[in-house]
This record gives sequence, C-alpha cells and structure tokens, in this order.
Amino acid sequence: MGTYEQNAINKVKRGANRASYDEAVVHEILDDAFLCHLAYLWEGRPVVIPTAYGREGETIYIHGAVANRMVNGLIDAGQASMTVTHLDGLVLARSGFHHSANYRSVSVFGKVKKLERTEEKTHALKVIMDHMLPGRWEECRAPSVKELKGTLVVAIEIEFATAKIRKGGPIDDEEDYASPYWAGQIPMTLESHPAISDELLQKPIPIPDSVINHLNQ
Amino acid sequence: MGTYEQNAINKVKRGANRASYDEAVVHEILDDAFLCHLAYLWEGRPVVIPTAYGREGETIYIHGAVANRMVNGLIDAGQASMTVTHLDGLVLARSGFHHSANYRSVSVFGKVKKLERTEEKTHALKVIMDHMLPGRWEECRAPSVKELKGTLVVAIEIEFATAKIRKGGPIDDEEDYASPYWAGQIPMTLESHPAISDELLQKPIPIPDSVINHLNQ
Repeated sequence: MGTYEQNAINKVKRGANRASYDEAVVHEILDDAFLCHLAYLWEGRPVVIPTAYGREGETIYIHGAVANRMVNGLIDAGQASMTVTHLDGLVLARSGFHHSANYRSVSVFGKVKKLERTEEKTHALKVIMDHMLPGRWEECRAPSVKELKGTLVVAIEIEFATAKIRKGGPIDDEEDYASPYWAGQIPMTLESHPAISDELLQKPIPIPDSVINHLNQ
Repeated sequence: MGTYEQNAINKVKRGANRASYDEAVVHEILDDAFLCHLAYLWEGRPVVIPTAYGREGETIYIHGAVANRMVNGLIDAGQASMTVTHLDGLVLARSGFHHSANYRSVSVFGKVKKLERTEEKTHALKVIMDHMLPGRWEECRAPSVKELKGTLVVAIEIEFATAKIRKGGPIDDEEDYASPYWAGQIPMTLESHPAISDELLQKPIPIPDSVINHLNQ
C-alpha cells in the first residue's frame, strides 16, 4: 500500500512528528472503530455529528434515514470531512503546559457519492454492519425493500487522509525533570462487557458467533 | 437550571424522543468527557478535530498553540459547533435495520471569544485541566509567561445545545419478535487503568490525589 498525498488541508504542522500519511496506518485506525464524527454545513455553519461507518478499500460508507439532515448535507456538498479518534490515555506532565493525551486519530477528506442501486446500497449496509461486528450481517434479517427505500447511503471516496498518533509518557522541559512534581500516564481503553440477551427473545437462542468473537478479542 | 432554546439548527427531528434540551442533562454529559470534536471552516470546507475542553457554567474553554489552525479558524468564524459523544454499547436487533448504538452525546453551538488577559487565560487553562482531572492544576508547574504567550485560549459561550441519549435493548418491528434471530446488547465503557509513573522521575514521588481519585471513581 502507498501513502496519501500531503497538501494544504491535510498536512499536519503542529506535532508533525506524530503524523502519518501511510495508508496501512490510516486503515488500521479506521478499522479499530465504528463511530466517527462527520462535519457538514448547515446554512453556512459547520455541524458535527457522530455516526456509524464502514470501510472497504478507499471507500467509507455512511447511512441515515431519507430525511437525515447530515447525509443530505453531505450529498449537497459533494464532499466530506470525517474524523475517528481512539482515546488511549491521559499524559500527566510535571508542567501544566506539557499535559497531553495519548490517542490515535484519522481525518479523512473525500468526495461524496449517493448510492442509488439496490445492490450497491445493500452491499454498503453490509460493509457498515460487518465493520461494527464482523459476520453480523448473516445473523439477522436482511433489509426489506421498504427499509432500503427509506435509507440514504453514501460512499465517501478517500481523497486524502492523515493519521495522528501520540503514545508514551510525558515529555517535559529539561529544567522541569528535577522538580518535585509527579508525572506519568493513565492508560484508557474502550472495553466491551458480556452480552445481554434481549428479554423479549421468545425462546432461548444462543449468543451468535459475531458477538462471541468480538468479546474474545 | 433551565432548558436551551430549540430552533432550526439544534432541534432534533429524527429520534426526537431521544433528545433533551435540559441544561442539567447537557452539563452532565459534557462533564463526563474531556475530549470533544470541533468543526471549523478551512477554505469553505468543514474540518473536524478532536481536542480537549473544559466547562464552567455556560462557557466551554478550548486552547491550542498560537499557530493552531483550528483555534484560529474558530476565532475568525466567531462561532463554533462542538460535539461530545460517549459510546455506551452496541444494540443488536433481529433486523439489520434496527441495529443501533447506545450513546450519550451533546452538540453545542456557541459564540467564540478570544481571551487576551493573562488572568483570563490562566483561569481557562485551569478549568480545562481540572475538567480532565479535578485538582490536577495544583499538582504541577503553573504556566510561565512564555508558555501563556504561546497559547491561544478561546471561550465558547453556549447559545444552544442538544443532548441525545439512547439506552436499553433493541426495538424491532412487531413481526420480527418471533424470528429465530438472537438480539441483545454489548455494553461498552471507557476504562482507566492503573497509573504508570514516568520512568524519568528522579526520586520516588507518590501518585497524587487527582489520579487516585480518578481511579477510585
């Protein structure tokens, strides 16, 4: 795999040593999450919305209801900016100034295309679901014609992207290392807990593989 | 406390039953996180960036280096949209269509003011740090004059805000309850792990109260 073009919009200036334009690094961070924050313009004002996504190659899929303002806003704009962030911990320095967080984030800039054909839409919805929980698509009822008609699906073709990663302990100014202040890290992880079967299951049904595989990761 | 005005930009149309404009609900979700996603316009294009924040009353504080494009973009625009999202779990329905996530999110829309006075800036930085880890400000070296000069700090005065909360199990279409598909939830939480003292501490220094209190929560 290659690297994304660096240009005025995605080239990191502050903390350039934490930036990567490597496709493999970007894909790994994208694949580790299923919730992104997308911005769209509403009457000239940027609005940020959390939403689910799936990735396949250089395509990100997003969906929403037909009247969804965010998805319609993306279609109108023809382009999108989305960000995925994993918070990996707090970095506590001797100086207030050098406090930070450990994180892995990706910002993607891409062209938006509305999917029209039933097969394209169905495929994109499968990618979104399997991105969240691999294999889940085969374990539930497929979308009906009515549901598909009521769903807007868009493909964002990645034009360029930037990963930014900070890890490790605090980095203080040289003269602060002898100070009496404690410094260190608090690691953080997003944890999944045992599945809770729906109370309304009408008979005992075993927890499916997608869920078991996720919890065994 | 009261409620935020509902208007064309913040009134939730899809899933209105999950929305709240209650100030106390909004504040609680904001205070449970320290990382938000902010959008700013760059050459007419919205860009989303994760960043730390602090809240005091109806004011959100954000900071960045003097050359930081995001903070400068907010100052130029005079207004900001920020979103905070807690992911609380996956909601796995019998139908693909009704899959969802449990979450608590807040979107804030506000006016941006650049802080100029040293005391204002110092106070805002204390709010940001204590928002992340209450009491931490007193446990580390205060910012120097040079550090303060090199830091942009802005106040976002909340004009209106919306909380959106989804919790609980899947809700399927009536005819799907008798289907053979498993349905349920996978709860998720952001977990903090034991603090790691910096290897470069020059003598043993006990882990401070802010960290111990955070980990005992």
